[in-house]
Amino acid sequence: MITVSIDAMGGDHGPSVVIPGAALSLERHPQMRFILFGKADEIEPILAGHPKLKAASTVVDCEVAVQMDAKPSQALRNGRWKSSMWKAIEAVKAGEADVCVSAGNTGALMAMARFCLRTMGDIERPAIAAIWPTLRGESIVLDVGATIGANALQLVDFSVMGAAMARALIEVERPTVGLLNVGVEEIKGQEEVKEAGRLLREAELSGLEYHGFVEGDDLGRGTVDVVVTEGFSGNIALKTAEGTARQIGEYLRSAMSRTWLARLGYLLARGAFRRLNDKMDPRKVNGGVFLGLNGIVVKSHGGTDDEGFAAAVDMAYDMVRNELLAHIDHDLQHFHNGQVRASLDAAVEDSGSAAKAAQ
Amino acid sequence: MITVSIDAMGGDHGPSVVIPGAALSLERHPQMRFILFGKADEIEPILAGHPKLKAASTVVDCEVAVQMDAKPSQALRNGRWKSSMWKAIEAVKAGEADVCVSAGNTGALMAMARFCLRTMGDIERPAIAAIWPTLRGESIVLDVGATIGANALQLVDFSVMGAAMARALIEVERPTVGLLNVGVEEIKGQEEVKEAGRLLREAELSGLEYHGFVEGDDLGRGTVDVVVTEGFSGNIALKTAEGTARQIGEYLRSAMSRTWLARLGYLLARGAFRRLNDKMDPRKVNGGVFLGLNGIVVKSHGGTDDEGFAAAVDMAYDMVRNELLAHIDHDLQHFHNGQVRASLDAAVEDSGSAAKAAQ
Repeated sequence: MITVSIDAMGGDHGPSVVIPGAALSLERHPQMRFILFGKADEIEPILAGHPKLKAASTVVDCEVAVQMDAKPSQALRNGRWKSSMWKAIEAVKAGEADVCVSAGNTGALMAMARFCLRTMGDIERPAIAAIWPTLRGESIVLDVGATIGANALQLVDFSVMGAAMARALIEVERPTVGLLNVGVEEIKGQEEVKEAGRLLREAELSGLEYHGFVEGDDLGRGTVDVVVTEGFSGNIALKTAEGTARQIGEYLRSAMSRTWLARLGYLLARGAFRRLNDKMDPRKVNGGVFLGLNGIVVKSHGGTDDEGFAAAVDMAYDMVRNELLAHIDHDLQHFHNGQVRASLDAAVEDSGSAAKAAQ
Repeated sequence: MITVSIDAMGGDHGPSVVIPGAALSLERHPQMRFILFGKADEIEPILAGHPKLKAASTVVDCEVAVQMDAKPSQALRNGRWKSSMWKAIEAVKAGEADVCVSAGNTGALMAMARFCLRTMGDIERPAIAAIWPTLRGESIVLDVGATIGANALQLVDFSVMGAAMARALIEVERPTVGLLNVGVEEIKGQEEVKEAGRLLREAELSGLEYHGFVEGDDLGRGTVDVVVTEGFSGNIALKTAEGTARQIGEYLRSAMSRTWLARLGYLLARGAFRRLNDKMDPRKVNGGVFLGLNGIVVKSHGGTDDEGFAAAVDMAYDMVRNELLAHIDHDLQHFHNGQVRASLDAAVEDSGSAAKAAQ
């Protein structure tokens, strides 16, 4: 049995989207249980309309809801210990829930999740991972905006975490990992990215296959299963792709409504357009995953509908079922132990040659 | 009269695309003159088929052509002083041509252009600017990959140069400028970006209107006329957008050929699809412009056809006609003088308070 803690007040529409969304996901995974945090007098009437969900849920009344436009520091000040967002995260820490889902504001959710769950073992920085639809299927891209900048070791941590997520979600045995870089010869890349590439090549991790550098256009092509970058360029890539998809959708709509022939053609081909819309539907891949914390938190888009929220809950379910955290923990220990061993070896060698030089 | 120096050997197809491309652009701007650098025995036979271009051109025989896969250092070693690429750039330095166009490899072209033309006055780093099709028309985005990283002053230089290019090419009086950033509250942006924003706000430059931060999805929306970022994220944004456009085109093609109804619809609406293709046609906005050097160099895509190459020549023409370099020079002097004045003022103030403290 998998228990999901839900911040029922999160998102632009609060319980009116979150509750029906959870109910949809429960249809697909009847073995789930839920703890719903939020204002009971707003939750209960909606829950009454979903008897199966009601039977699988516990409601925990919370007076405070974090505002969608609250700054992280404000949210922490006003919402720590008592808001629905905090309590939903805390349930994971306390072991009452296996995973937390919220459509609340990203900055506040990350700040609370870091504060409450703390980062795992050797991880210094959490990352937000997104699912990216590609011509080959789906890839995982991280960090799409948790922190700005990352050193080489942090990029390797992201690679290990992303690969573990790929194994859990897109079910590849040994996912391929690429580091996002620019292709212009000889100015190729930031030093950190080059260094991370060297570390990944040398570490020969069992949980992933290091592919090398990839460029922006490899994202949509699906060249690798996991694309790793720091949060600034990751966030820009994600939003640029979303913006471009919207832009082309807009061009298409305007082209198809211009002449009566085009409109007739559109009518005949509307099955095809529906397929296209499905492919481009952002609700299908809704959910950013916070990785690197002692617990999994899934962030749903704030403006999504019940279908989109259900997709985020599905994702949370899959990650728990596939023991994402245990995989990450195992792979990271393997990598960091290897690193410690390598630096010990180097130190021994150094002192050896120093001793020789002193003779 | 405007004279364009052309590296006739550049690009995947060399003179067989470059010559017809130049001829097309000459049809649109009959007052242009050309100096064509390259292997005369390859150029002359093709030029013979374009009598108008032949009459407007001088051919300068060069034995060496820079390879498309040459590294910048190799290209400099083997092609300096004598390659068609070098000679085309040198013609701008010598004042024989007003602008240079090449479809040769970007790294080599930038290395040679920097070496030959040197950076302008106070500019430390050149940038590559791209034209970005948007829902509102066109924007200018820079740097899309000349150098990685940029400090606050360099970002301001990019803003000034991009705004001057916007005035020349998209003919806006006082272009709006946005700094590319990520939207997550409180981790908002790299320090350099924040500092550049402060400088732009305080400088109150006459040649541009500073809009503030923009995000990845503002690129396609056309929120501002000029989007400024350093070369790493700029390159990733550009390639991500190109990749996303290709990906959606692929989805659309496959959706439209699945059923006979869709195929019939496609036939009826093919005028609309042609319009869409036109909108998305990368040849229409072909040409990256090297800014910040003592001379303008336009880089055409290596794999483009004659229509695409003609677009790059058109762009070169427009920039000369609109006195791009003089605008950049004027605006930069204005900004840097202001900066020098401000730091002098600050120094005077500091010594004043130091004197007071000493009393």
